[in-house]
Amino acid sequence: MTVSLVGAGPGDPDLLTMKAARLLAQADVVVHDALVGDGVMDLVPERAERIDVGKRAGRPVPQEMISALLVELGRQGKRVVRLKGGDPFVFGRGGEEAIALQEAGVSFEIVPGITSCVAAPAAAGVPVTHRGVSAAFTVVTGHRRPGEPDVDWRALARFNRTGGTIVVLMGVAHRGAIADELIAGGLDPDTPVAAVRSATTGDQVVARCDLAELGSTHVESPATIVIGAVAAFDLLRVEHDAAPRFDPAQLAL
Amino acid sequence: MTVSLVGAGPGDPDLLTMKAARLLAQADVVVHDALVGDGVMDLVPERAERIDVGKRAGRPVPQEMISALLVELGRQGKRVVRLKGGDPFVFGRGGEEAIALQEAGVSFEIVPGITSCVAAPAAAGVPVTHRGVSAAFTVVTGHRRPGEPDVDWRALARFNRTGGTIVVLMGVAHRGAIADELIAGGLDPDTPVAAVRSATTGDQVVARCDLAELGSTHVESPATIVIGAVAAFDLLRVEHDAAPRFDPAQLAL
Ligand SMILES: C[S@@+](CC[C@H](N)C(=O)[O-])C[C@H]1O[C@@H](n2cnc3c(N)ncnc32)[C@H](O)[C@@H]1O
Ligand SMILES: C[S@@+](CC[C@H](N)C(=O)[O-])C[C@H]1O[C@@H](n2cnc3c(N)ncnc32)[C@H](O)[C@@H]1O
Repeated sequence: MTVSLVGAGPGDPDLLTMKAARLLAQADVVVHDALVGDGVMDLVPERAERIDVGKRAGRPVPQEMISALLVELGRQGKRVVRLKGGDPFVFGRGGEEAIALQEAGVSFEIVPGITSCVAAPAAAGVPVTHRGVSAAFTVVTGHRRPGEPDVDWRALARFNRTGGTIVVLMGVAHRGAIADELIAGGLDPDTPVAAVRSATTGDQVVARCDLAELGSTHVESPATIVIGAVAAFDLLRVEHDAAPRFDPAQLAL
Repeated sequence: MTVSLVGAGPGDPDLLTMKAARLLAQADVVVHDALVGDGVMDLVPERAERIDVGKRAGRPVPQEMISALLVELGRQGKRVVRLKGGDPFVFGRGGEEAIALQEAGVSFEIVPGITSCVAAPAAAGVPVTHRGVSAAFTVVTGHRRPGEPDVDWRALARFNRTGGTIVVLMGVAHRGAIADELIAGGLDPDTPVAAVRSATTGDQVVARCDLAELGSTHVESPATIVIGAVAAFDLLRVEHDAAPRFDPAQLAL
């Protein structure tokens, strides 16, 4: 394969897939975003060229240029790894690059990555689904861009009144307005919230609050914001002197 | 760590994380589900004990027994890998096992896996989000279990009328009824659908239809059903004699 659109996971290099690690080790060129973790970039071999398309001179590189670059590198027959934070298809614009490569007739593949929408909550001990608590989760962008279909937050609230989970990516800046809309749509102001910043890296920070407090709670980007009953879970908290809940004698396997 | 709750990904062993592969190589015991791919199970060392808790004598092993087993093995100080298809927290009941271990005071960790809700669509060339097309995706179970909060399919349809993506897991049996409810809730009967069975394995099959046809379209379990405009995408289709879309001369990186 010439160009591989590869998900790098949320940050911890141990969460790279075997395939991603192998492609990185063999790459001639790695075209990467700002959000790809330093630990992952450390796995790029010395001899490989690195092209940072996250930001140039403080401004994001236009998507058309990134796509054109991938087509050009692919045509040169190089082993190109296009490395994206998380998964390429979860707000990763992998689809746009795939279309450009497909239209140009350059062979490519998609290599999924561990997406932060599930792994960031997990790193805080929050399961996005839980039997009897949440039978659905909605992953949604909090970043309104021109040309993007509007997110109907009130309709989302109505769907989730019976207990679903809402996972907001890119929502730090508008978190107060998002909370207001969800409450206006019928979500309880007491709904638990967990915001996980830089999950699985050394900079991980978890903030917990309820929905009414979200706007005034300190949260920094990049963060994944989980809204719903599951956000009250803290499965990684260590308990001491705990008694067994199940009797191993029941065990008839 | 004594017990590791590990996501095995959708099937392809190359989509295991580095961490999962290492834990498997070091395991004393691997407690696994039916849905874990054969290719992944091949990575379990000869000397490790394997316990299949997917089904016993044709019936699923009760969750309490699995949890009790993990507590018991953890107390024996063994290196236990609890291996689940996809990600442990996406309809994987990882939360229940984590609670049991936490309450019993057995140390454990959560290792996310590539979830089929994103990777199965990707394997069919379908991105769950796409700029200008879908700014949200909802992952929902199609399997109604007693005690589970009801999914409000009509409210889900109303949220998605402006273009979101719906990803149904465990929905093969009820796909016709689900489609009817979504149409009753206002989704266009022409809404594209892609159903991906056994994604990333040698048995992968992709079926495409529109929402009105879903009930009468042949789909076998285990399948991930994607409903929404993105389901019409076929990004892995190979095109020939395609002209470049972007002019590489634009490229001023
Ligand atoms: C442009 S989106 C890309 C998401 C990525 N493709 C994925 O699957 O995780 C960037 C957003 O993802 C979330 N994110 C990415 N990495 C994260 C991390 N390590 N911890 C928490 N949130 C993260 C944040 O909401 C961030 O604003
Ligand atoms: C009990 S759920 C577990 C999901 C898993 N934890 C995950 O994250 O992928 C099982 C359902 O996941 C979906 N699934 C799992 N593996 C799949 C695969 N390889 N291809 C398509 N769908 C799959 C099917 O809908 C199946 O019924």
